[in-house]
Amino acid sequence: MSEPVDGPVWVGIDVGGTKVLAGLVDATGRVLRTARLESGGPRATEAALEQTLTDALDLVCEGVTPHGVGLAAAGLVDGAGERVAFAPHLPWRDADVRARLSSRWGLPVALENDATCALWAEVEHGVLAGVSDAVLVTLGTGIGGGLLIGGRVVRGAGGMAGEFGHMQLVPDGRPCPCGLSGCWERYASGTALEVAAEGRLATGPAITAAARAGDELAVAALADVGRWLGVGVANLVSALDPAVVVVGGGVSSAGDLVLAPAAAALRTHLLAARHRRVPDLVVAHHAEHAGVVGAAALARRLTQGSPAG
Amino acid sequence: MSEPVDGPVWVGIDVGGTKVLAGLVDATGRVLRTARLESGGPRATEAALEQTLTDALDLVCEGVTPHGVGLAAAGLVDGAGERVAFAPHLPWRDADVRARLSSRWGLPVALENDATCALWAEVEHGVLAGVSDAVLVTLGTGIGGGLLIGGRVVRGAGGMAGEFGHMQLVPDGRPCPCGLSGCWERYASGTALEVAAEGRLATGPAITAAARAGDELAVAALADVGRWLGVGVANLVSALDPAVVVVGGGVSSAGDLVLAPAAAALRTHLLAARHRRVPDLVVAHHAEHAGVVGAAALARRLTQGSPAG
Repeated sequence: MSEPVDGPVWVGIDVGGTKVLAGLVDATGRVLRTARLESGGPRATEAALEQTLTDALDLVCEGVTPHGVGLAAAGLVDGAGERVAFAPHLPWRDADVRARLSSRWGLPVALENDATCALWAEVEHGVLAGVSDAVLVTLGTGIGGGLLIGGRVVRGAGGMAGEFGHMQLVPDGRPCPCGLSGCWERYASGTALEVAAEGRLATGPAITAAARAGDELAVAALADVGRWLGVGVANLVSALDPAVVVVGGGVSSAGDLVLAPAAAALRTHLLAARHRRVPDLVVAHHAEHAGVVGAAALARRLTQGSPAG
Repeated sequence: MSEPVDGPVWVGIDVGGTKVLAGLVDATGRVLRTARLESGGPRATEAALEQTLTDALDLVCEGVTPHGVGLAAAGLVDGAGERVAFAPHLPWRDADVRARLSSRWGLPVALENDATCALWAEVEHGVLAGVSDAVLVTLGTGIGGGLLIGGRVVRGAGGMAGEFGHMQLVPDGRPCPCGLSGCWERYASGTALEVAAEGRLATGPAITAAARAGDELAVAALADVGRWLGVGVANLVSALDPAVVVVGGGVSSAGDLVLAPAAAALRTHLLAARHRRVPDLVVAHHAEHAGVVGAAALARRLTQGSPAG
């Protein structure tokens, strides 16, 4: 993917456990070019991962100098946006990532958690423009989350806010790889969708396609995931009272097959649903580029003097 | 209760379903005088309730002119702090309470939800001085809640943030008077404590006293409530990552009999508890005067030009 570049540009790099996705992004959030490389996962060395990021940056910047780079890291980023404290799928361990890469590249660098970047993408260039209070729930392998309160992105005292996926919804429920049980993401995620399809359809996209073709098991699997999505969203709405709930990630591409049962469950499980404004459930504008667009938006805010948060 | 008054004072009035508690409060949060009257509950008329508030105000203001009055209302207050939208235990229905009483009394009036006032009391004159990110959970008949994020009290898009008590912790669990089932406050509250004591000890204070005297059932009942408190707090910490969790309300007077099992359950149910700072569970500084002190603090902020929030 490559489009002509004129005007200032920034780079967003989504650093995940399996892939590194870099994108050249303009001030309106348009992705002009992308490059995708294998990240090497947790077994790569820090040096190898950072070389991969450098390669990806070079690929999207051919003939162009960006104003800054944003990194969307699949891990826990400290409150200052300086260090990756912990990342189960990456080699970084309490690593001074921002300063190191900024020095290496000679460019301003912004560092943020990938789910928080996805929230920024919606705030700056998506369905949350002009919204002050919102929750983002992304349904992928697990659940990612982001919180916008009073117009500010919430990171929490230790940078770990938004870990909605590990809220316990079922006492002594399904075991979770995190070591707990009954976690929300065991019931509402791409993984949960595959479980609900009883192994007959192996992937989320296959289940969604089958449901669109009228397959009853596939429809029921999406409804089951949607219902659990609604139960967990009701809990978040009770706690936070957002104006909008954005649903992103692969499962959201099923649209109303998952959102209609979710909206019904939200009404059924929300306190005083008839006496209040129940927030809208909205599909995220950004899909696979959410991290790239959000990270680039943070880099833009950094270089244009509008501090993030 | 009456102490000499010198220096500026404000009045806080806690408007609950059974009682109206007014207090004359100085700039340091000290309660100098109080007056308690029956509120009349939901069957009183608006006019009768507002006369009761006026009587309570007159009682604490004898010989003194306050700078302003704060109202802590047991109900849903709109985001602007103007109206009581809905209050199950009071006669107000979408009532323009703030302007009406300000006009009647010829004084500046601040209006806020009672649980939010309790949070303000801890922020201004309690255990949350200097803390930016905190959650307040009050265990009384039900669960009240308050949220402090980035140094700001969170009210939500419709003023209903902090309704933690109706987050569903148990699918198809205990029925709740709110119409839902499995709500957190069915498992962790003064009411839940009486259920856990199997009717043998009728009140929370009696259960706490019995537990202090070594009664095994009473100890187990407090531990059960504490464990459920910890499970729900773990969910809030996963979502919000606060630095401190404050526990208030009648049940918190049991101290470690309820907080030690809660802290243990919080660790057991929190994602990556060994890889993060687990927030402290702290007993609220303010007990029965929390609403009064917080409402008076809001009135003080209003009249001293430091806008709340």
